[in-house]
Amino acid sequence: MAESLEALRKRIDEIDLELLSLLNKRGEVVNSIGKIKETQGTKRFDPVRETQLLESIKENNEGPFSTSTLQHLFKQIFKASLDLQKTETKKILLV
Amino acid sequence: MAESLEALRKRIDEIDLELLSLLNKRGEVVNSIGKIKETQGTKRFDPVRETQLLESIKENNEGPFSTSTLQHLFKQIFKASLDLQKTETKKILLV
Repeated sequence: MAESLEALRKRIDEIDLELLSLLNKRGEVVNSIGKIKETQGTKRFDPVRETQLLESIKENNEGPFSTSTLQHLFKQIFKASLDLQKTETKKILLV
Repeated sequence: MAESLEALRKRIDEIDLELLSLLNKRGEVVNSIGKIKETQGTKRFDPVRETQLLESIKENNEGPFSTSTLQHLFKQIFKASLDLQKTETKKILLV
């Protein structure tokens, strides 16, 4: 039997909490990367790395979302992650 | 000892693959919801439900991302999910 609307919505709730937790975990790792780059004096934004990540999405996408939709979403995630590093750097500078 | 840049990047790769898989899982569940709504003649977009989901993000956010950043990302995910249902409906209409 097909799942009820209520059961499916519960699954969405669970998936969203997992997404939330994963996004924040990503943010923490990105902050650690930012700190290493800070000490190395390397630029935070690495276009080659971003292209590799977007390529990996294309290779691993099994749908139903189209690759272009997912790449668009991930670009937003990359941008938010980059902004997070900027905020972290600002905090360091303000201390 | 702090993790190396290489090790941290490997963790980002793993997190991104998990995010990709979760997003597509979400897409599948949303498609199932769309089919139920189709038979019930209910509208796909439910603003009350969207507000609840955004509120849940606020309640469960432990950072480092700000709630507004995460809510912005989730709005994009909701929009992509809604577009996915439109595509699915179109497929049905074309058959």
